[in-house]
Amino acid sequence: MSFSSFIPPQRTLMGPGPSDVSARVLSALSRPTIGHLDPSFVAMMDEVKLLLQYAFQTQNPYTIALSAPGSAGMEACFVNLVTPEDTVVVCRNGVFGARMIENVQRIGAKLVTVESDWGRAVEPQKLEDALKQHPEASIVAFVHAETSTGASSDAKTLCDIARQYDCLTIVDAVTSLGGSELKVDEWGIDAIYSGSQKCLSCVPGISPVSFSERAIEKLKARNVPVQSWFLDQSLVMGYWSGEGKRAYHHTAPVNSLYAMHESLLMLKEEGLENSWQRHKNMHQLLADGLADLDIEFIVPKSERLAQLNTIKIPHGLDDAQVRGYLLNEFNLEIGAGLGQFAGNAWRIGLMGFAARKENVALCLAALTEAINKFRK
Amino acid sequence: MSFSSFIPPQRTLMGPGPSDVSARVLSALSRPTIGHLDPSFVAMMDEVKLLLQYAFQTQNPYTIALSAPGSAGMEACFVNLVTPEDTVVVCRNGVFGARMIENVQRIGAKLVTVESDWGRAVEPQKLEDALKQHPEASIVAFVHAETSTGASSDAKTLCDIARQYDCLTIVDAVTSLGGSELKVDEWGIDAIYSGSQKCLSCVPGISPVSFSERAIEKLKARNVPVQSWFLDQSLVMGYWSGEGKRAYHHTAPVNSLYAMHESLLMLKEEGLENSWQRHKNMHQLLADGLADLDIEFIVPKSERLAQLNTIKIPHGLDDAQVRGYLLNEFNLEIGAGLGQFAGNAWRIGLMGFAARKENVALCLAALTEAINKFRK
Repeated sequence: MSFSSFIPPQRTLMGPGPSDVSARVLSALSRPTIGHLDPSFVAMMDEVKLLLQYAFQTQNPYTIALSAPGSAGMEACFVNLVTPEDTVVVCRNGVFGARMIENVQRIGAKLVTVESDWGRAVEPQKLEDALKQHPEASIVAFVHAETSTGASSDAKTLCDIARQYDCLTIVDAVTSLGGSELKVDEWGIDAIYSGSQKCLSCVPGISPVSFSERAIEKLKARNVPVQSWFLDQSLVMGYWSGEGKRAYHHTAPVNSLYAMHESLLMLKEEGLENSWQRHKNMHQLLADGLADLDIEFIVPKSERLAQLNTIKIPHGLDDAQVRGYLLNEFNLEIGAGLGQFAGNAWRIGLMGFAARKENVALCLAALTEAINKFRK
Repeated sequence: MSFSSFIPPQRTLMGPGPSDVSARVLSALSRPTIGHLDPSFVAMMDEVKLLLQYAFQTQNPYTIALSAPGSAGMEACFVNLVTPEDTVVVCRNGVFGARMIENVQRIGAKLVTVESDWGRAVEPQKLEDALKQHPEASIVAFVHAETSTGASSDAKTLCDIARQYDCLTIVDAVTSLGGSELKVDEWGIDAIYSGSQKCLSCVPGISPVSFSERAIEKLKARNVPVQSWFLDQSLVMGYWSGEGKRAYHHTAPVNSLYAMHESLLMLKEEGLENSWQRHKNMHQLLADGLADLDIEFIVPKSERLAQLNTIKIPHGLDDAQVRGYLLNEFNLEIGAGLGQFAGNAWRIGLMGFAARKENVALCLAALTEAINKFRK
């Protein structure tokens, strides 16, 4: 077998992530590698922390970029804050709520599940009922923006309720960070994780996380060690937050962090509120075009994410055939349905750098052509 | 506070990793991001698997690149193969053996430690004695190339002994893969992990791993779930090894895998044996020059790694002052001592793309100048 350099096709990425990465971020990515303890690199890490605080709207000193994808960010929040003695209320309205449940089970903590329909927001009243019924609960976990369904939940209200019942909150912001309103401090979120490859439009592989003071207190008060050495934030802290000297824990993904720095810088330059508004505007353009094609959304209007549009596959069209056509004819990637929606929905991402007029126009034109060609 | 794009200094990386990354690999890294389920990407992943099989000298079908650094690769081997019922013999002769112990403890398995001196190889007789004394042992773990000390252990002999006592082996090849002789199948290694940023000279953040058929059998026969969802290889398998269709587990670090593909391709083009020999040749050049400077090695000659040279800091020199001078005057990074050797040793890496005559010459010239300047 013979091998040669891999030259990827040039795609437009409008699936559920990774999203389009700008030339500016790719250029930052490929700058010369330096040591993970180099003083220049440590200074850059400090900027990444400040820029992440801005993106998350938090003053939490422990706001860092974890050296692994969002799924590891989720696991980091759970294994650091949940012990086998805890009772955790997980709100499930899609794939990622289900993954939270897996995390709780693997820790061996007591689990309470609050079920909401797929494609709908988490219902605050159901959370409150569960907390009334389980006064022993110590942690509430939910997904802010469900990437599997395109539903947005009311994180502020859910956090308010959790706080009333004296629970810490763990919030999945993988698809919301940078793309829709998110205010960690104002909403009182205790542990939050995101991904690099959604609305930040950085390359995949990094997970921004932030822990509140209460979360850090709980971590420090643990009497059983965190079950993961790699994700133990009491150790990672020595690398990201050492005053002056940084302690070696693992070798940080240096180049990916260059890219993260650049993508956060672009967010700062645009302004967070402007970015949220841009996602809304592009969503509206797309929604108008989809309406003209008689394509329906899965999620009711008031609960829709701007950055992830889950739509019903029009009657008479074959899922894989249409997506294959878009990919092969237009180099355009849109996402398949996941879980309950596999085979009957598409997910159109308008995330970060992909939330642009040219992308919306391309997507609508390509869908129109495919529908005309394949509809029986 | 104002921010701008981060332009790193151009360093020569001769520490314990990351090593110098070639322009060719950096260029591959920055190619346009595509989807992690894109057919083109899946085809590239298949090539990465074949190229890794070559680098590891194995036919193991489960040979993949994990989406996180080498420390996560270590943890993946332990949490997938070790259950709380196992007795694990860990050979410790440096920092990374100690980290293996941490992993066993966090799983709650029974631990037997075989201690060898720091800066020396693991002693096979000690392993055999421990296995005689602990017939219940089911797993033996050791570090092939101790990055903290520069000592190389006889992996073949250690694996032979483990096999005689019917134990699976977990081997740390973070610093050996690509840089010194390593034959996974011939030596009968059951689970092995490495890092992208040592002798492969890829960017940091990826961990190649390979599991033998016996390791996969043990994983499949588990009756308790793997404690980490992110590192559960029975799930990751569906993404890397699905026949035909790949199941989503997490979003792979697409661009870092482009870089991994390119660096493995460079290794294949050079030839594995040629790469091993190049590391030996450059080590000899460096050793000759260090002898002229009366600088002594920590590790006895027969147990030295070519790719990581741990040397005693000459009397009268200040560790941080000299390293700072090399960095500031020559843009040259060498490594500090770690653990027992902190403050009294330096670690000079000759790994992958850094194992070049120009690097050896620069290092010797810079050290000579620093010694002349600072020796009291």
